[in-house]
Amino acid sequence: MPFDAIFVPAAFREAVSDEAWLRAMLRAEGALRTVEGRAGLFPGAAPADPRLDAAALVEQGRSAGNPIEPLVRALRERDEHAHWGATSQDIMDTAAALVARHAGGLVAGELAGASEACARLAEAHRGTVMAARTLLQQAVPTTFGLKAAGWLVGLVHARERLLAAHLPAQLGGAGGTLASLGERGTEIARAYAEELDLPEPVVPWHTRRLPVAELAAALAVAAGWCGKIALDVALLAQTEVGEVREAEGGVSSTMPHKRNPVGAVVVRACAEHVRAGAGVLFRAIEQEHERAAGAWHTEWKALSDALAYAGGAASRLRELLDGLEVDAERMRANVTAETLSEAERFAPDASSPDDYLGSADAFVDRALAYYRRESA
Amino acid sequence: MPFDAIFVPAAFREAVSDEAWLRAMLRAEGALRTVEGRAGLFPGAAPADPRLDAAALVEQGRSAGNPIEPLVRALRERDEHAHWGATSQDIMDTAAALVARHAGGLVAGELAGASEACARLAEAHRGTVMAARTLLQQAVPTTFGLKAAGWLVGLVHARERLLAAHLPAQLGGAGGTLASLGERGTEIARAYAEELDLPEPVVPWHTRRLPVAELAAALAVAAGWCGKIALDVALLAQTEVGEVREAEGGVSSTMPHKRNPVGAVVVRACAEHVRAGAGVLFRAIEQEHERAAGAWHTEWKALSDALAYAGGAASRLRELLDGLEVDAERMRANVTAETLSEAERFAPDASSPDDYLGSADAFVDRALAYYRRESA
Amino acid sequence: MPFDAIFVPAAFREAVSDEAWLRAMLRAEGALRTVEGRAGLFPGAAPADPRLDAAALVEQGRSAGNPIEPLVRALRERDEHAHWGATSQDIMDTAAALVARHAGGLVAGELAGASEACARLAEAHRGTVMAARTLLQQAVPTTFGLKAAGWLVGLVHARERLLAAHLPAQLGGAGGTLASLGERGTEIARAYAEELDLPEPVVPWHTRRLPVAELAAALAVAAGWCGKIALDVALLAQTEVGEVREAEGGVSSTMPHKRNPVGAVVVRACAEHVRAGAGVLFRAIEQEHERAAGAWHTEWKALSDALAYAGGAASRLRELLDGLEVDAERMRANVTAETLSEAERFAPDASSPDDYLGSADAFVDRALAYYRRESA
Amino acid sequence: MPFDAIFVPAAFREAVSDEAWLRAMLRAEGALRTVEGRAGLFPGAAPADPRLDAAALVEQGRSAGNPIEPLVRALRERDEHAHWGATSQDIMDTAAALVARHAGGLVAGELAGASEACARLAEAHRGTVMAARTLLQQAVPTTFGLKAAGWLVGLVHARERLLAAHLPAQLGGAGGTLASLGERGTEIARAYAEELDLPEPVVPWHTRRLPVAELAAALAVAAGWCGKIALDVALLAQTEVGEVREAEGGVSSTMPHKRNPVGAVVVRACAEHVRAGAGVLFRAIEQEHERAAGAWHTEWKALSDALAYAGGAASRLRELLDGLEVDAERMRANVTAETLSEAERFAPDASSPDDYLGSADAFVDRALAYYRRESA
Repeated sequence: MPFDAIFVPAAFREAVSDEAWLRAMLRAEGALRTVEGRAGLFPGAAPADPRLDAAALVEQGRSAGNPIEPLVRALRERDEHAHWGATSQDIMDTAAALVARHAGGLVAGELAGASEACARLAEAHRGTVMAARTLLQQAVPTTFGLKAAGWLVGLVHARERLLAAHLPAQLGGAGGTLASLGERGTEIARAYAEELDLPEPVVPWHTRRLPVAELAAALAVAAGWCGKIALDVALLAQTEVGEVREAEGGVSSTMPHKRNPVGAVVVRACAEHVRAGAGVLFRAIEQEHERAAGAWHTEWKALSDALAYAGGAASRLRELLDGLEVDAERMRANVTAETLSEAERFAPDASSPDDYLGSADAFVDRALAYYRRESA
Repeated sequence: MPFDAIFVPAAFREAVSDEAWLRAMLRAEGALRTVEGRAGLFPGAAPADPRLDAAALVEQGRSAGNPIEPLVRALRERDEHAHWGATSQDIMDTAAALVARHAGGLVAGELAGASEACARLAEAHRGTVMAARTLLQQAVPTTFGLKAAGWLVGLVHARERLLAAHLPAQLGGAGGTLASLGERGTEIARAYAEELDLPEPVVPWHTRRLPVAELAAALAVAAGWCGKIALDVALLAQTEVGEVREAEGGVSSTMPHKRNPVGAVVVRACAEHVRAGAGVLFRAIEQEHERAAGAWHTEWKALSDALAYAGGAASRLRELLDGLEVDAERMRANVTAETLSEAERFAPDASSPDDYLGSADAFVDRALAYYRRESA
Repeated sequence: MPFDAIFVPAAFREAVSDEAWLRAMLRAEGALRTVEGRAGLFPGAAPADPRLDAAALVEQGRSAGNPIEPLVRALRERDEHAHWGATSQDIMDTAAALVARHAGGLVAGELAGASEACARLAEAHRGTVMAARTLLQQAVPTTFGLKAAGWLVGLVHARERLLAAHLPAQLGGAGGTLASLGERGTEIARAYAEELDLPEPVVPWHTRRLPVAELAAALAVAAGWCGKIALDVALLAQTEVGEVREAEGGVSSTMPHKRNPVGAVVVRACAEHVRAGAGVLFRAIEQEHERAAGAWHTEWKALSDALAYAGGAASRLRELLDGLEVDAERMRANVTAETLSEAERFAPDASSPDDYLGSADAFVDRALAYYRRESA
Repeated sequence: MPFDAIFVPAAFREAVSDEAWLRAMLRAEGALRTVEGRAGLFPGAAPADPRLDAAALVEQGRSAGNPIEPLVRALRERDEHAHWGATSQDIMDTAAALVARHAGGLVAGELAGASEACARLAEAHRGTVMAARTLLQQAVPTTFGLKAAGWLVGLVHARERLLAAHLPAQLGGAGGTLASLGERGTEIARAYAEELDLPEPVVPWHTRRLPVAELAAALAVAAGWCGKIALDVALLAQTEVGEVREAEGGVSSTMPHKRNPVGAVVVRACAEHVRAGAGVLFRAIEQEHERAAGAWHTEWKALSDALAYAGGAASRLRELLDGLEVDAERMRANVTAETLSEAERFAPDASSPDDYLGSADAFVDRALAYYRRESA
């Protein structure tokens, strides 16, 4: 789609490209051939993979509605045993698991980088007093350290959930019974999952798409959380607030002196596309019988969009946080007399905003301890 | 909203009613008062709760945008120490956690009931041959036992995830610092969570709504999975297929002899509303600063809808499965000659559909073992 | 659902209540009976409507999956000719058309009130200089009059589209052929639509739900637009900006001196629920054959939610705008030196912000002329 | 995104490609330069457009968050007057209007083709008796002609609405006041819209995105309706129903003799992506102040997805309908005795299904007349 490159770095675009999917499909076919050979179903070793053009395969896949049918034709030209026992969906779903593991890992890496930046900010700004704002009104004093600690906790949580959301290997054959593998079905299926180092499902999940929806949820939560931090940044960067500023703030075609919070804007836009993809994947739980008449076909784009744009959100957020300029003096100066007097109502013996901060520092400690524990 | 009673049983409607929320709010306020009294912040015990009219409170809440402000006024008329240290959102969010735990537990109970029905079907129909259908075309033979086993695995998985999706207690005060509790903040917050038997968050989660989104995801996955089973039932019940029939099939205002798959229809409709609520809750991750200017306010209805309609989906599915009439003869008779010859290609030595079933029975065993293990 | 009363005024809740739907169903049944009687199909006049309890009917509708079946049973106890030729969906859909016309009209009325307030603001603040803000950064000077004029144009447009989005009458009989009306089908269908003053469709629209989706779109556009204005208000009301203030700003349970932009917050929350309902209605376009197996059943709640919450958004916006306090001095004072110098680059001969306003005033004129033309 | 080519024909992918957007931006810049020159703002003619690489521009646009900033830099290297008075969004939005007009026109063309196919089917199958099905159960007899007529009415309606959904030209300058055009702003804006043959908005619509949402709604309605027809086709093509068959039914990698309803499956998948894009565009109505901090940036991908996948849905549906094989004998044979007896209850004098068809034929006439009227 147009302008992807504005939002999604090359590594993420490549991780969900036709080429990446093709590599994953070949790996799935290869693993199947290997374990079937090893189990003695066929003599001899598999030939090397043919050289295939991903774009051409996809074009040829139009009539079958998926790219596996032309792929299998190409494989079988050299190896009559290729794809034995599998159905198109076995290969596509296993490829999805491999693509998601790789791309999801990249997203998790960016979340880890953003967490590190938040941890630094939380530590550095324990004593930076600023206004807590509720319903966009100043409420009582807090610290920027606590704000960054809150960002941190969400990032750590989101990364942990993302890493736990795996797609299993898929091998069920035409109807989910592995019929053409006779009595060896479950044995081959287990070896196939092991060969690919993917979870083995209880039973084939051709139309039991819960893992896909759960991965989608993890991506939407992660990207949404990046969006929340970006929203805070954009609000703090407002001209009238001026408490933070992006180091690489965007330039404007008409107003060269402006420093726009472009990173925050891009993060928020990415998060929206992840949610849209997740919405499709949640809908796609309802699939007909043993293979869906449409819903399964929606997953490839929706999952790829969700992975790529989650990567766009997380990587841009990491860049943004790594270079965030914090104006601690402005933060304190912005705290209004009314906000202070609000604080005084609750802590009548206090003499400066720092005395009204309650458990702010203790919460920063808890957040950092959580971060260190989960990152270990 | 109109016609709720067609879709959602009374127990679920009550579990998310104004009254249920009010009880949960009073329980949160009571727990706070209790632990603060116990900690020696105030002398004496709290008075009994005032008698409050939920509808009136909600009407009065219109000007503040939430029902806590009038609730706190009523409490403080009798007890000047009520609500000490808390902000409205602390009570609302803790109430949400209590409401969600109760209603979510009811949903999980219905999922367990539906699982039991599936386990019975899977066991009873191990040998019931039927056509596996892909893209709504017959593919190869399978068994109804395996179909039910697949339904079972998804139900067990969905229930497990739902039970793992907890909302924590909330106590952060006006700005998330617990400022008015001075140095006792974290101690009081822990005691409050323990008093309510709710998880204690790392730090207050006023605008870190990941647990809400994750609960939403669990509900949407559970209801969506109910919808998938209902879709299969509706397709199998088609006049031209006739392989299953709802015991309590719906009557028609114009065609008294029809037996409509009304249960399946209701389940599917419910699932759609759960997804809609979940979509709102995913959007609501992006909240401004320390309290949101709108997104938080969307959660109450969205979460209540999601809980109630997930209950509608799960309970109707359980009823439907409990009474499902399975026509095993029709299942076998519907398997076409073409489907059989397809199977023969893969298993040339077989002589009846039963010989083409590959790992179907082994998969049923695996599914039942998984069910027993997870239900233990 | 809980807390509806915080967001939706009583008039809108009533307009989509079980009772309102029941009245509309009875009106549809009555119109059918009347035109069939007039056409000579039956002798004699219809008896008066029975007294029916909406809640009881809905409970009884659980087994049929809709409330028409028990309604028809009740009607036929007194009048064997009731419901002749109709199917449940004919009555439900016609009732939906009547409910939507009434509730939609109420929404349109609130949009008209909000438009009037915007027109007043646009006229009054033609000369009120303020900063235009792009990406939440000050850009160049504009006027609050132009900002209000932009709000106005969207409100007028949204109201116009909403008023143009009608649901037609529905009369198709069991299969959409009006079979039991023999050769008189199209004649009766036309008379029925005329009797109800509803549009007559080209052919029955049992599963051609485009008008429902279009109404949903009109509601989501209208509520979304209210949300945009509310977002601007909430941002302008920020402590650090302070350019507007809600007359009826919300009180806080913990911070009695705060004036929260509660109206804006409520409007934004309502808009989200309208979008959620619209999402369901867009999905519901895909319906099976001549009556859907689930999607149709999702419409009642989704449409009712969308109508009620659009009413909540529009009415609260009207109130908010009617009482909006505008601080013109603060607006001008907030314009930074940098924003002014930006303006100077483009208009080097100018000497005050008022000289940099380009077509702002001309655009206000155009907006007001458009408003007057469309309201005439 | 991967596999786009399976779903979206090349013409639609190209119509929303980076290159197509770049051409549209250059056209917008060119029109602005032309009308400003014509109005005497600058001497001399504009130089020819520079040769630009769309992919490189987009990469360079990453720091500004849009591709206009590097585009303007390139233009101004040759022509200091380029982009005078405009802001990035003016060019992007006008480009969106041009891209949408072109791609939307292609979609409308495919809808017209599909309509023609339906009209042929409706005429040819006036007398083809089949079962009307409600809740996936046979109800009463109808004709395939009436079914196709219903499809036709929706297609005509959807095409008409799509053609009416225009995006206007955009020209507002940095803050929506056209400040740098002094007193000539509205004159230049009008000339610019006329030069591009685009509607002129009442006032600039930088953050008044109602037209985008309405276009999104028209696309989602159109694609959703294609999805409804595809759903009917997939259901009628089921092995156990066998009433229609796609001429170009898909091949299977494992079951070469199957003829899958691949066209219908692809149409349904496309429709889902259009809805997802529309959901993003509905959310994007809520934009901050005079330029949004994220929502605007979501539109480019969402609108491009919606246009391309609406094209995918409509074009595949047209192909599918053009080649649809209808088995009229099977249709009649499938009508069960119970369905016939149901019909007899209403028309006791009838002697064959053809006598129970009520207004089916009259409705076909009405649909065809509507088609001819709207297509004229």
